[in-house]
Amino acid sequence: MKIVCLDLEGVLIPEFWEEFSKKTKIPELMKTTRDEPNYDKLMKMRIKILKKNKFGLKEINKIVSKMKPFKKAPEFIKWLCKRAQPVILTGSYYDYIMPLMKKLNYPFLIANTLKIAPNGEIIGYKLREKDGKIEMVRRFQKAGYEVIAIGDSFNDVKMLEGANKGILFKATQKLIEEKKEMIHAEKFEELKKILQKIL
Amino acid sequence: MKIVCLDLEGVLIPEFWEEFSKKTKIPELMKTTRDEPNYDKLMKMRIKILKKNKFGLKEINKIVSKMKPFKKAPEFIKWLCKRAQPVILTGSYYDYIMPLMKKLNYPFLIANTLKIAPNGEIIGYKLREKDGKIEMVRRFQKAGYEVIAIGDSFNDVKMLEGANKGILFKATQKLIEEKKEMIHAEKFEELKKILQKIL
Repeated sequence: MKIVCLDLEGVLIPEFWEEFSKKTKIPELMKTTRDEPNYDKLMKMRIKILKKNKFGLKEINKIVSKMKPFKKAPEFIKWLCKRAQPVILTGSYYDYIMPLMKKLNYPFLIANTLKIAPNGEIIGYKLREKDGKIEMVRRFQKAGYEVIAIGDSFNDVKMLEGANKGILFKATQKLIEEKKEMIHAEKFEELKKILQKIL
Repeated sequence: MKIVCLDLEGVLIPEFWEEFSKKTKIPELMKTTRDEPNYDKLMKMRIKILKKNKFGLKEINKIVSKMKPFKKAPEFIKWLCKRAQPVILTGSYYDYIMPLMKKLNYPFLIANTLKIAPNGEIIGYKLREKDGKIEMVRRFQKAGYEVIAIGDSFNDVKMLEGANKGILFKATQKLIEEKKEMIHAEKFEELKKILQKIL
């Protein structure tokens, strides 16, 4: 029995803030680490914009409840549960991502938490640990597991390289070219075929 | 968001070998660590009896597919998934326990693996690590989580005491008396009430 660690955004659900920006029509929320590589600055900016637009946790959850995972993601997770132990490793936050987890049938989720004021206003964020993804992969390996990791972006590379097997999924052409030695898939059906051989 | 670590047998499903013994009408399989405290001897005896009775993995799975979790366990796991991240920690084996996991909607399961011959015969077992339950609790704590542990028997005590909060569930009177300082519940409704206060 193997543990399969999956990134969340870009792999099972759309990029959260891009989707949120579209649904709320707040274009400033479209910015990602590609535009602002300093994560702390980026998050503080997001929190400021949310406050300006009067988006507390309740209002955010209303929007998120309308979001959807990728079309074939729920079926894929179901398929995977029969064959391995899936774990979602994400830099995202429990506080607003849980309505989407429901649509994936609640796989085990390792994420971070926001700081929320009693009135529901988001006032900060708390990262559990540095390099949370690869740290968790290492812990499972120490417990005697072989770990397969699946991710789409540069911030997944450490996890993909540290796992016993790393698979790029829905990755950008740039990342695929940079990590030529790494196997990659674009559709869930392809990913299943790859996994079928190694699970 | 907290991680809730649950023992499996006696907590969510009946004691596996007792149930298996009843369903197969092989009384020798009724023995547990209470009768034979040496786990290695106990497992080797079970493997021998299975072989004698021509029970390979296929035949075992046929029996297990007829077993059921405790009546309110699936609903409890569903309830818990909305409020915390459940993890099942068991000394049991993936190879024969998975049909029961399906009935619990596949919560994240940390277990061990059997050694199976190509013809399906069980020829041995492999424990991932010593003290697997408490080791995993400690790993989650190191990752920045508060951990609640739920168990029913003496082999859960280390995990219950090492967690941030330990709860005895469906435990024997003897254990309840020995661990007077520990909160305990007998029914899922009681357990929910306790969890509601601390999740």
